[in-house]
Amino acid sequence: MSLQFQIEATSGPGRRGRLITPHGEIETPIFMPVGTLASVKGVSQDLLEELGVQILLGNTYHLYLRPGVDQVRRLGGLQRFMAWPHPILTDSGGFQVFSLSELRKVTEEGVTFRSHLDGSSHFFSPESSMEAQIGLGADIIMAFDECTEYPADQDRMRKSMEMTLRWAARGKKYFEEHKNEVPWGSRQSSVISRQPNNHIGQTQSLFGIVQGGMDLALRKESAERTVEIGFPGYAIGGLSVGEPRSLTREVVESTLEHLPSDKPRYLMGVGTPEEIAQYASLGVDMMDCVLPTRAARHGLLFTSEGKISIKQARYASDAGPLDPNCGCRVCSRYSRAYLRHLYASNEVLAQVLNTVHNLTFYLDTMRAVRHSISLEEEARFLSEGWSRPKP
Amino acid sequence: MSLQFQIEATSGPGRRGRLITPHGEIETPIFMPVGTLASVKGVSQDLLEELGVQILLGNTYHLYLRPGVDQVRRLGGLQRFMAWPHPILTDSGGFQVFSLSELRKVTEEGVTFRSHLDGSSHFFSPESSMEAQIGLGADIIMAFDECTEYPADQDRMRKSMEMTLRWAARGKKYFEEHKNEVPWGSRQSSVISRQPNNHIGQTQSLFGIVQGGMDLALRKESAERTVEIGFPGYAIGGLSVGEPRSLTREVVESTLEHLPSDKPRYLMGVGTPEEIAQYASLGVDMMDCVLPTRAARHGLLFTSEGKISIKQARYASDAGPLDPNCGCRVCSRYSRAYLRHLYASNEVLAQVLNTVHNLTFYLDTMRAVRHSISLEEEARFLSEGWSRPKP
Repeated sequence: MSLQFQIEATSGPGRRGRLITPHGEIETPIFMPVGTLASVKGVSQDLLEELGVQILLGNTYHLYLRPGVDQVRRLGGLQRFMAWPHPILTDSGGFQVFSLSELRKVTEEGVTFRSHLDGSSHFFSPESSMEAQIGLGADIIMAFDECTEYPADQDRMRKSMEMTLRWAARGKKYFEEHKNEVPWGSRQSSVISRQPNNHIGQTQSLFGIVQGGMDLALRKESAERTVEIGFPGYAIGGLSVGEPRSLTREVVESTLEHLPSDKPRYLMGVGTPEEIAQYASLGVDMMDCVLPTRAARHGLLFTSEGKISIKQARYASDAGPLDPNCGCRVCSRYSRAYLRHLYASNEVLAQVLNTVHNLTFYLDTMRAVRHSISLEEEARFLSEGWSRPKP
Repeated sequence: MSLQFQIEATSGPGRRGRLITPHGEIETPIFMPVGTLASVKGVSQDLLEELGVQILLGNTYHLYLRPGVDQVRRLGGLQRFMAWPHPILTDSGGFQVFSLSELRKVTEEGVTFRSHLDGSSHFFSPESSMEAQIGLGADIIMAFDECTEYPADQDRMRKSMEMTLRWAARGKKYFEEHKNEVPWGSRQSSVISRQPNNHIGQTQSLFGIVQGGMDLALRKESAERTVEIGFPGYAIGGLSVGEPRSLTREVVESTLEHLPSDKPRYLMGVGTPEEIAQYASLGVDMMDCVLPTRAARHGLLFTSEGKISIKQARYASDAGPLDPNCGCRVCSRYSRAYLRHLYASNEVLAQVLNTVHNLTFYLDTMRAVRHSISLEEEARFLSEGWSRPKP
């Protein structure tokens, strides 16, 4: 088995669990920081470990352009390339090329797109996305889907969903035929990377993605037919594309009902700290979002007292910590005045420190969610007069 | 006493010692990383501590513009402002305004200059530089000097040197009258910063600066007359301004002979790793340079095997460490291929990691110099049949 998922506690639809991948275990619900180009911008890997990051997300589109899949594959896969010997998930590139709205053309075969770097032309298909993701060697990889734009009419949503289903089947077929080519999966790979290999015979895990726009019936159909194709985990895609948050929540809640409860469920590309806590309580196991890292670069900081825009002049003389209730390296050492100065002076350390704090805030949020699910479970056991087995 | 200097070992003209400042002890010879705007670009203070940085240099010109001297003073001085409870040295602003050649006008009174940020007009004099540096509150501050341009004729060199001497006397006078206004020096200051204050009654130490262009006789005269004014430490300024390196060395060696051996000697703004080791062996106790941090930002890395330009394509597939003989966090974790990818992709982590390595290389160089001076001293004691007192 290259992926195991154990549910250890539940609280209503929310669940606390453990996902076991070739490169390590992940406690769920989990927040996955985004490391677009094999780096969480400004934060070194040892600091990510210290923050308690358990899994990173890499973007196939960006890594395919730089440094290139072959480069990463020859160096033993993303984990070795970036010196992150822990779990990694890559997206399929589908959402990224979807974002290049002016630069892409979608056909049944796949997507032709132009690089945002040099305008060069490239082609991604369900098969070539698998090929790229196998070369990158993340522990969890994603089916190549079409992210339906918002708003879209009924006909467009159905056609897009149907194509994503056909692409999912094509991707799975390619993956099954080539999954042993993962850089860390063979004896050959240890020779290439000149390092011991504990992963011989293990493979990546391919997750399916549910689409269907904002139509709940299409979402149900997409979920059921994706489950029919069969994957070790399921993602909900096509959200956070401009729709109101109440609608996002409605689609998430409704779609989750049609996904098997014994498989991990990944909600892609959301959200604020409040939202990720809420989605976790609805039964989502995995989430990723650029918000904590991107907001940090713009001086927007999440704190227990609300959002702070550190660029504001009122912080220039504020000797207090960024968040008095946060124990991170930033809050325990630096003042708001200093953080404001760094940001206002365009110092690189501003980005580093802001990112460390925002990631801490997200990771602490998920820790609290996991803890509260465990407590509720415990409360339920106690109220029913059971005693829990000791760990 | 606000500054003590103890020489603990010598090797030829080189000496190993200990400089005791209000915010801590420094082992000399020491390399001081440059933290222009109260930050060593990209590297957090806890990481600087881990690297073994003992003293930082701040630039008065830059800090005066952003965040402003009053801001820093009100927040308890630079050490508290930037959460670096260790020694700091500030330059006088003289060299910085000298660099703004198009934007400055020098008179006997001082220098009128335009901000490189917004073109606004400002004025620095020997007195106002002291006022700014007292407000910033570094442990060691520098006299306001005129850095003579290179090349310069005899007349120009003499006139410039004479003015620097008059400015030194004016600066010292102002400093003596105002030194108790340092933000951490009074009971008042603990109230302002709401923190305990261990520095009541202590003051900063003002160093004089020797000028005189590239003329050895003028350098001798400048040294002798600066010593006559009287300072607890002496710097050699006006070097590394475009002259050949052999000339720099000649001027340093010659000037050192005219500086008192019981006072710390600071050579400003040099140099490569080879040069700082060489100057230390000539009897220089303190040095600063932007080279390790600036070169890092341009992908130029100092290693035990020579300089490396990490942007070069030949490193794209190089799985080896940056410097196999370096034990820093970067060399012990990441490959040249990864560092090359970060740099080529313009990732902020490139700057962070490159800076950490280059600083390590400089600090290790100085550690080795200190060690070798101690060993030589020990060898001498042994050969003379003495036994050293135990520490």
